[in-house]
Amino acid sequence: MRIARLLVEGTPVPAIAEGEGYRLVEDAFAPVVRRLDRWIAAPEAILLAPVEPRTVVGMAHNTGPGDRLLPPQAFLKPARSVVGPGHALRLPRVGLVEAEAELAVVIGREVAECSSALDAVLGYTVANDVTARDLQVADPLWTTAKGQRGFTPLGPWIETNLDPEAALVGVALDGHPVSSGTTADLARTVAEIVVWVASWLPLGPGDVILTGAPGRPVPIEAGQDVAVSVAGIGTLRTPVVAADLASVRGAA
Amino acid sequence: MRIARLLVEGTPVPAIAEGEGYRLVEDAFAPVVRRLDRWIAAPEAILLAPVEPRTVVGMAHNTGPGDRLLPPQAFLKPARSVVGPGHALRLPRVGLVEAEAELAVVIGREVAECSSALDAVLGYTVANDVTARDLQVADPLWTTAKGQRGFTPLGPWIETNLDPEAALVGVALDGHPVSSGTTADLARTVAEIVVWVASWLPLGPGDVILTGAPGRPVPIEAGQDVAVSVAGIGTLRTPVVAADLASVRGAA
Repeated sequence: MRIARLLVEGTPVPAIAEGEGYRLVEDAFAPVVRRLDRWIAAPEAILLAPVEPRTVVGMAHNTGPGDRLLPPQAFLKPARSVVGPGHALRLPRVGLVEAEAELAVVIGREVAECSSALDAVLGYTVANDVTARDLQVADPLWTTAKGQRGFTPLGPWIETNLDPEAALVGVALDGHPVSSGTTADLARTVAEIVVWVASWLPLGPGDVILTGAPGRPVPIEAGQDVAVSVAGIGTLRTPVVAADLASVRGAA
Repeated sequence: MRIARLLVEGTPVPAIAEGEGYRLVEDAFAPVVRRLDRWIAAPEAILLAPVEPRTVVGMAHNTGPGDRLLPPQAFLKPARSVVGPGHALRLPRVGLVEAEAELAVVIGREVAECSSALDAVLGYTVANDVTARDLQVADPLWTTAKGQRGFTPLGPWIETNLDPEAALVGVALDGHPVSSGTTADLARTVAEIVVWVASWLPLGPGDVILTGAPGRPVPIEAGQDVAVSVAGIGTLRTPVVAADLASVRGAA
């Protein structure tokens, strides 16, 4: 099942993919999802980020067997840095900014303790863990490097049926593939990540775990169209635009 | 005005202090707060954390003039680590854990850009920025050190009338004062902090900025009653209890 969130007459509404469009539903997180009468054809649908998380947590150094020798490490991204498919990223003037394509785990309900964490997984979506590389060097806590406005594109929807342990992940710039990898090459399995994170971090419905980029990061520039994708889920597009004057002042 | 959030018949309800109790209101964040009929006497009121934030951001190294020589630096705490007055902290077995008493800024509405950030401040509350010191050394991103369950006690209410730049801040253990300071001794003023954070971090209603501990951190242990306070706001109590077996497994 594909769970999306649409903007319908100015209001976010949950929906599930049905035919060549979306069936609105009452609550996509309910144990039994109740379909509503209204159906919207795909070309008319405005997709938002599929969740409005309270917690977005990402895995640090989680690529390749070498990283297994290090203890697992996580960082937080601001919940309000999450944006949906097609949302323009106004590139702040902070030096090198890179896209990272990642499989994102979506939590469906309160996680009381880590032993039940895997049961709480609702599905998977695609994330672009945008990172300001120069700020990451200057700020050892990574907060400014990972946390700017629009730095967590998420979507286009949640896929509930996916093998997360062997999913192809890629980045394309202006339609040309430039980076690829598979979650099989992550240092830790997605299941290990979910259990470890839940062992210390309070998680609840709509929260998102970014599992780490198995492919290489891709420098991005204003004017480019960045597409990150996970096979079996879909493609998340982000147009990159220059910061306007307000943002430049904001970044000062 | 003091804005609280009460648990009334199992549901969180906004309220404002009135006489020796709380007047329930429709929306404490509205430009004009509409009072409801119901009033609850203080001894009967169950106080929750005064907000349910999406973003909790704290200031690193923000004590004393020496820290002014360093660039400002921030960290994120998980929104779900926020708990209310009197909520028991189950101390995870992660070595030294310390309480830090801090003035917390509460944001009242969407902050479009940093030039309007100060106008978006709704008021101030008290925070205990609980920190696992040994984990902070082991995890340079501080995520596990700052982000465990229950590590952000907040409350008891939001005070809208306060001079944030010269507020006395203190910690008491089992009723005995053990640490004190004033926000006048922070490396950066509260106004500077709010504007700087808003320059790069997306903020909205209910979000919280922890301004840094002007006094020294206080080691805490199971069995203690920890009270952090800000003069002009109030006192936030947290009983500390030993981790139960489930939590021990969780922290493994």
